[in-house]
Amino acid sequence: MQTGDFPLGELAVRFGLGLRGDPDLAVSHVATLAGATAGAVSFLANRRYRRQLALTGATAVVLAAEDAADCPVAALIDPNPYLAYARIAMLLHPPPAAAPGVHPSAVVAPDALVPRSASVGPFALIEAGAQLGERVSIGPGAVVERGARLGDDTRLLARAVVCAGVVVGARGLIHPGAVIGADGFGFAQDRGAWTKVPQLGTVRIGDDVEIGANTTIDRGAIDDTVIEDGVKLDNHIQVAHNVRIGAHTAIAGCTGISGSTTIGKRCMIGGMVGFAGHLSIADDVAITGFSLVSASVHAPGSYSSGIPIVESREWRRTVARLRRLDRSARSEPAAGTAEDVNTRDDR
Amino acid sequence: MQTGDFPLGELAVRFGLGLRGDPDLAVSHVATLAGATAGAVSFLANRRYRRQLALTGATAVVLAAEDAADCPVAALIDPNPYLAYARIAMLLHPPPAAAPGVHPSAVVAPDALVPRSASVGPFALIEAGAQLGERVSIGPGAVVERGARLGDDTRLLARAVVCAGVVVGARGLIHPGAVIGADGFGFAQDRGAWTKVPQLGTVRIGDDVEIGANTTIDRGAIDDTVIEDGVKLDNHIQVAHNVRIGAHTAIAGCTGISGSTTIGKRCMIGGMVGFAGHLSIADDVAITGFSLVSASVHAPGSYSSGIPIVESREWRRTVARLRRLDRSARSEPAAGTAEDVNTRDDR
Amino acid sequence: MQTGDFPLGELAVRFGLGLRGDPDLAVSHVATLAGATAGAVSFLANRRYRRQLALTGATAVVLAAEDAADCPVAALIDPNPYLAYARIAMLLHPPPAAAPGVHPSAVVAPDALVPRSASVGPFALIEAGAQLGERVSIGPGAVVERGARLGDDTRLLARAVVCAGVVVGARGLIHPGAVIGADGFGFAQDRGAWTKVPQLGTVRIGDDVEIGANTTIDRGAIDDTVIEDGVKLDNHIQVAHNVRIGAHTAIAGCTGISGSTTIGKRCMIGGMVGFAGHLSIADDVAITGFSLVSASVHAPGSYSSGIPIVESREWRRTVARLRRLDRSARSEPAAGTAEDVNTRDDR
Repeated sequence: MQTGDFPLGELAVRFGLGLRGDPDLAVSHVATLAGATAGAVSFLANRRYRRQLALTGATAVVLAAEDAADCPVAALIDPNPYLAYARIAMLLHPPPAAAPGVHPSAVVAPDALVPRSASVGPFALIEAGAQLGERVSIGPGAVVERGARLGDDTRLLARAVVCAGVVVGARGLIHPGAVIGADGFGFAQDRGAWTKVPQLGTVRIGDDVEIGANTTIDRGAIDDTVIEDGVKLDNHIQVAHNVRIGAHTAIAGCTGISGSTTIGKRCMIGGMVGFAGHLSIADDVAITGFSLVSASVHAPGSYSSGIPIVESREWRRTVARLRRLDRSARSEPAAGTAEDVNTRDDR
Repeated sequence: MQTGDFPLGELAVRFGLGLRGDPDLAVSHVATLAGATAGAVSFLANRRYRRQLALTGATAVVLAAEDAADCPVAALIDPNPYLAYARIAMLLHPPPAAAPGVHPSAVVAPDALVPRSASVGPFALIEAGAQLGERVSIGPGAVVERGARLGDDTRLLARAVVCAGVVVGARGLIHPGAVIGADGFGFAQDRGAWTKVPQLGTVRIGDDVEIGANTTIDRGAIDDTVIEDGVKLDNHIQVAHNVRIGAHTAIAGCTGISGSTTIGKRCMIGGMVGFAGHLSIADDVAITGFSLVSASVHAPGSYSSGIPIVESREWRRTVARLRRLDRSARSEPAAGTAEDVNTRDDR
Repeated sequence: MQTGDFPLGELAVRFGLGLRGDPDLAVSHVATLAGATAGAVSFLANRRYRRQLALTGATAVVLAAEDAADCPVAALIDPNPYLAYARIAMLLHPPPAAAPGVHPSAVVAPDALVPRSASVGPFALIEAGAQLGERVSIGPGAVVERGARLGDDTRLLARAVVCAGVVVGARGLIHPGAVIGADGFGFAQDRGAWTKVPQLGTVRIGDDVEIGANTTIDRGAIDDTVIEDGVKLDNHIQVAHNVRIGAHTAIAGCTGISGSTTIGKRCMIGGMVGFAGHLSIADDVAITGFSLVSASVHAPGSYSSGIPIVESREWRRTVARLRRLDRSARSEPAAGTAEDVNTRDDR
């Protein structure tokens, strides 16, 4: 994927980096510290990998000033080496551009708006009234339902589905299998059965949003579900109807957000976090993975409720003690043994 | 999407609602209390939104008798306002009907049964021996494998897959990306490796079942996996082989149900609940979100095990204390500090 | 699906089983103990179902020697009856083989390698430079992107996606909706927004790997994500970039593994387990379902952290007591009632 050699001096100027070493040394591709050979540029952004620095075969390493003294090769220096690395990697390895044009196997409604600069892949479907911006790319088997709109440079990858009326901003990236705009989960109780509540809103997604593989974002019940600019969603996330996710919030995989919950801007949500519905989460909140959010969070900060593993035998005893906390406080007789009925079937 | 204006008097008669206000006032569409303008009918079903009632711009509001006195506009009164709202919304905003006929790009096996009233979309595949009922709708890219059967009025949306031999009842709604009838997860240990156990059953789904986007329901190992009438499954649910879900049970997103577990009728299961296998859950059980069900539940009621978040620093200390519960009870020396080895890496 | 009758004597010889009963009795299909009728072979591998043995209508039962005395019909005896059953079931019910050839609706790049023995289904796409091994089967709507390679006898089922450059070994089975090789979730902080870090590695998958429906495996950031031989992944699993999963490890549904974590060989991971990133898990580790793994595990054994449900009222009191553990240890005033602010909104 490499596109040529870049002298370190040119990289330093282009991205405003410090340089310690020969500016005429050139790099052609990125590599890890451990895997790098001549011609590679690597980076150090996580202290966990610092021991690999001394042994690296890279031609240059992007790192912070405080690590430069330990770097055995040329150093590109920036206070945010991961960001500097990202920019260099994008320069050295630009993503392949989809060729403009509509594949002959695609089905495009006569009144859909598909500019010449757009790319529509095999078996893609663009329904009536849909509108694609300039240079939009629609992957194989992807579906853009009636009246949906995708902004300039947005890429819908293989088999992603954008349902009726959904609006996606510019420069979006929607990974394979994602489903944007399916019905929210709304039912009214009717004497022991359920009657469907029509889901009449849609989904509005801002600019520069990335949505992971097989992630689902449901349409609103009446008003819309809203994903603001710059939000990054990992794979296997479930966003229920009428959720709002604030700008530049990042959410890791397998997290689920129940209906009508609002998450603030610049939040960082770990993986497999569960949100109850109708909550409000402030801006700049971090929630560590495997946590349950069942009440609103009004102040920035870091929040948790995940319990790390221990050996199963010890854990069974701990669960039994936990159960007894309540009973002993209330002067009820405690079961007193690990054979406590509540835990005996704990797999 | 509106289809015309309906006088409140006609709505009251049609759905058996009380009316306080002018029966000749007409509504054309639904709206939230906060977003409503003239011509809209709104509803109040969750006390959380009661403050919005006084300020609503709706022409009429569906609500319970006890809230009618506080309603500043016309009131449609029912003990179950959410249900009454659902019926009105369905009347005002009927879902667009798919046009009958087979899209020229679809592939339909010669011996598949596809009635004239059915709709088969672009790139849909109907394999040999499959049978569609009257007015069945098959979305773009959806797959109905050999011998599968879909009952009258069932809708399979974009890219959903119904595997070989699966049976779905009438009036079903299967959202994009759902996979019904993939192999169950069955392997036998063979000296450190795994040998596949053929998954020979299928999936049988009753009438009026809704299945969310990207949800998966595995075929049975020998007998079938069974979803009874009226079950509602949200997105990203995993139903393993030989599970049985009782009629009118509703399950929220991201929940996983391990093999051979039986869930009763009219249960309400929250999101991200994990069920161990081979369990039996009684009828009318509610389980709150983010809970672990590792033993059978024999009595109706509400059950929980999710722990809500607190600030991460407080949580780390709580986890350390929790660990010590068992040790101190057993007179082992307690580590005594928050630097407890088990928690130091708690992200 | 049955292919004929097999005398018990032939099964015993072919699979090295003990036989107690008439070797000329023949079976044609498998069944559960409870559902079996004449001509069926059943099995007993889980003590939970032992009571059904006495009443079975099967012609023969595969079981362990210690259960043979209780078997009312012919017995096929093996120390690992589930494995013996799996082999018999595969013999009696071989999976239908896909007919070789490329469906006329499929799109295959001119330079893709598709042997005559391969099967390519309707609406499948094989991009430039992709290579299929002998007898590879590509399901309807499946996508093999540029340069990807699938080993002999690997089956890609309906709508599965194998992204650019991904390598899958021989005899793999990839279920509908799986996405192998989407971008990892990598972003660098840039003054409150996120800059994408190009995901330049790929995914390398060994031989005999099974991947469940809608499971996602992300490509590496620089180096590759690696799934070793014989790994079995259930549905709805998320494998992040640069994860390595050791040979013959089995992982149940809905589990999520964060980036750069390494899992050893022959591990057994339950459903809905969450792994933090950059961890190392030893060989032969078992982790029970609904557990959080936030630190490396250095020794084989069984580990847990899931808390089983109790009645919601009791649980709310337990959570309140848990909160007070830390406070009372630090001599802070305890809130003292179940109305503790942290739990009042616990759904």
